[in-house]
Amino acid sequence: MQEILDASQASDWRRPDPAHTLYLELDSGRVVIELAPAFAPAHVANIEQLAKEGYWDGLSINRSQDNFVVQWGDAAENEADRKPLGEARATLPAEFERDADGLAFHVLPDADGWAAQVGFAGGFPAGRDTAAGLAWMAHCYGAVGAGRDVAADSSNGTELYVVTGQSPRQLDRNITVVGRVIDGMERLSVLPRGTGPLGFYEDAGQRTPIRAIHLASDVPDAERSALEVLRTDTPLFDELVEARRNRRDGWYKRPAGHIDLCNVPIPTRAVE
Amino acid sequence: MQEILDASQASDWRRPDPAHTLYLELDSGRVVIELAPAFAPAHVANIEQLAKEGYWDGLSINRSQDNFVVQWGDAAENEADRKPLGEARATLPAEFERDADGLAFHVLPDADGWAAQVGFAGGFPAGRDTAAGLAWMAHCYGAVGAGRDVAADSSNGTELYVVTGQSPRQLDRNITVVGRVIDGMERLSVLPRGTGPLGFYEDAGQRTPIRAIHLASDVPDAERSALEVLRTDTPLFDELVEARRNRRDGWYKRPAGHIDLCNVPIPTRAVE
Repeated sequence: MQEILDASQASDWRRPDPAHTLYLELDSGRVVIELAPAFAPAHVANIEQLAKEGYWDGLSINRSQDNFVVQWGDAAENEADRKPLGEARATLPAEFERDADGLAFHVLPDADGWAAQVGFAGGFPAGRDTAAGLAWMAHCYGAVGAGRDVAADSSNGTELYVVTGQSPRQLDRNITVVGRVIDGMERLSVLPRGTGPLGFYEDAGQRTPIRAIHLASDVPDAERSALEVLRTDTPLFDELVEARRNRRDGWYKRPAGHIDLCNVPIPTRAVE
Repeated sequence: MQEILDASQASDWRRPDPAHTLYLELDSGRVVIELAPAFAPAHVANIEQLAKEGYWDGLSINRSQDNFVVQWGDAAENEADRKPLGEARATLPAEFERDADGLAFHVLPDADGWAAQVGFAGGFPAGRDTAAGLAWMAHCYGAVGAGRDVAADSSNGTELYVVTGQSPRQLDRNITVVGRVIDGMERLSVLPRGTGPLGFYEDAGQRTPIRAIHLASDVPDAERSALEVLRTDTPLFDELVEARRNRRDGWYKRPAGHIDLCNVPIPTRAVE
């Protein structure tokens, strides 16, 4: 894999749009989230509004469920104690899926049990059903989604979760995925697991404080994380996937002949 | 799922054999590993010998690679500094697969991209190829394997790893799986990620000390973890799998109609 990356050209990489990139600032450092307005335009717009207002600043990560997700938002139990949403919307339509038309979709030829077709769209692992004309983002490691209650349209982006375990693909098409962590996953995946139901912390003191969540475009240039993400629609990416599907180094005695959507690495690199 | 478990009978549960159960004792508490002599008899026998000798006592967890594995063993770089193996064997045959004949295999009917067939054998997630007459344990979350070098027969069970991320099924049939963590995964999955190559810690001080690894049968009754694991070969288990394959509660708007081998929960419960 490293050999393939070493042979990459500048055009094999892309720079995530700072206007659609979140910085989650923890005491342990920064987590970088690329938002996906092509899949969840209303949620992404609301999340960006919330970030501009400093909505999450001073809130906390309230949940860490082993082999599943971490989640942050407003832990206040009473409506009256909750942080005001400012100009952000309190309710949004469900954005579980989108029209497959007009969406560039780079197909992964490998079989998948959860979706008719899987692949990558805009750099995000995704599923597609061409018969139904629908596409959606997949719950792979690092996927960021908008927590909701029972009603499909009960999410507004204030409660966000990140997948930290085995891909819970049963959530696909059941909840709005808004983006993906592209750097700093290890700051989330190591958080102590909560011992309450669903991995919520039982004591407020166990929560992880959120210093701030900012849009990258609202952060001075010098403080931005200069990152590039490998494009997923290039011959080089296909080559990388094949190198992982059938590993040819001496260690592997039996190439798998298959790769799961959520086992495909999407490399990120720091740039000057 | 809880409703189904609440309706379970004593016969739906099994008690892992203490003679084939390891207790990994960390400062944070105990991790319980069920060994699988039916799949890896030589490795399991060697691991049990090493545990009896206290081989790992005072060694450490030396590697934590995000979304992949933690690993422990002897971190000494020079052969001369390594802990002696005592009566344990220094080399073992590879036990990547076993004969499928004579192995009770409870088939999971769901499609799988990595194996002709998947299911459960002796309570362990497993793959099978009936044409080839072979079966093997699958690298799901919590799987415990024996690290090796390039040679297929270079593992002896001293270096053990545990899967802490998205199921790395490409390792199936390439390395000897020796068992599965049945309790305490959250003590391993939160370990800080190492910043060296492959997630090894760069400083010895970052390693997690191992107080001891004992066989449960060598621990006094009063100090044993009294655990039962749900049997995977019962109608109740099938019912539980179906409840997860097609979730019928109000929250899910679209049952997946599918479940991946590594998304099937195998519940454990504490007993008196």
